[in-house]
Amino acid sequence: MDKTAIEKIIKQVLAELGKTSDAIPVELSARHVHLSRADMDTLFGFGENPTPAKELSQPGQFLSKERVRLIGPRGVIDNVAVLGPARPESQVEISLTDARILGIDTPVRQSGEIEDTPGIVLSSHKGIVGLDQGVIVAGRHIHMPAKDAARFNVRDGDRIKVRMNSSRPVVMEDVLVRVSDRFNLAMHIDFDEGNACGWKQGVPGTIVTNQEKVVEF
Amino acid sequence: MDKTAIEKIIKQVLAELGKTSDAIPVELSARHVHLSRADMDTLFGFGENPTPAKELSQPGQFLSKERVRLIGPRGVIDNVAVLGPARPESQVEISLTDARILGIDTPVRQSGEIEDTPGIVLSSHKGIVGLDQGVIVAGRHIHMPAKDAARFNVRDGDRIKVRMNSSRPVVMEDVLVRVSDRFNLAMHIDFDEGNACGWKQGVPGTIVTNQEKVVEF
Repeated sequence: MDKTAIEKIIKQVLAELGKTSDAIPVELSARHVHLSRADMDTLFGFGENPTPAKELSQPGQFLSKERVRLIGPRGVIDNVAVLGPARPESQVEISLTDARILGIDTPVRQSGEIEDTPGIVLSSHKGIVGLDQGVIVAGRHIHMPAKDAARFNVRDGDRIKVRMNSSRPVVMEDVLVRVSDRFNLAMHIDFDEGNACGWKQGVPGTIVTNQEKVVEF
Repeated sequence: MDKTAIEKIIKQVLAELGKTSDAIPVELSARHVHLSRADMDTLFGFGENPTPAKELSQPGQFLSKERVRLIGPRGVIDNVAVLGPARPESQVEISLTDARILGIDTPVRQSGEIEDTPGIVLSSHKGIVGLDQGVIVAGRHIHMPAKDAARFNVRDGDRIKVRMNSSRPVVMEDVLVRVSDRFNLAMHIDFDEGNACGWKQGVPGTIVTNQEKVVEF
């Protein structure tokens, strides 16, 4: 192999690395619930913990084998995933499509911000729980370790724009950046957002910076 | 009322007019079907026409009183609207969320482009029809009279970007412009797209032009 060919390959590899370094892996969040210790007890038996079935991208988080039914005033959704481990407060994350099916007027919130959110009824094969609050549509966000935040020049709490170069391309604005070294780099969108942009497994997002230039004379 | 007050009101009115002149009214397209003459006959009786229930924004188009069931290999969706009048070919417009429920791998297409699209079974209280093709997810588009096209400086067939300044703001790219004086100005998006941007009745779209500037020295 001659030098020119090697140089060509090196250039291609560098170009490829350049591409991937801009990319933010995107994950679709299906509807799911997080359960408090007390609600786990009611729904799955005293002292029962969520049974890990599959690791998720964020360290320590997992999909469990447990499933619940969501019961709203208008409709019911079965077989909804329970994520583990248990949390201080139960939280139900659905899409606006789900919200319509259930008949629950649900606000878009970031995870954990459940004050003044609507309640819901959860049932399992063992029990039933009425939550006074905790139903949200999760706002789009990016989990970002500090080293990536430095690389992208963003800070915890920033709201940024991310372009999805999918079959129905969109730029999502107002994407919350959450920086912590407990995170792996991943952008989370819900099923409505995924469908709206025709997202498929493996399509990354790229940060959009404002192109506006002020030219002074 | 003194002159200053009048001037203030005039300014407000002008500002409001300025706003609306940039705005493109947005409409959410719920799942629906268009039926051919022959399929109308099978589903609702020989010679029956769709019975107008409500005028739609595009001249001559209406929501009918007729409803059909969509039957896919995986699931069924009931009570789906039939739009009128009858068309040369039957066409079923669903969202990607619906496509998943029905179990039909459905491409995003513009209305009328049904070659090589999947089929579906439709049923009513009177009959059942198997379509060989015609199921699409409608690509986002804008119906635009020529005077608006001139105003926005776009042409029939252009693909443009439109920003939705809704609760989950997005810029939708690749929006098809369809220019005809048979149209009223309206952008059509589907329920997934509406949910993804938190669209509510009355929120308009605005065309985004590229901000990139080439500065020559």
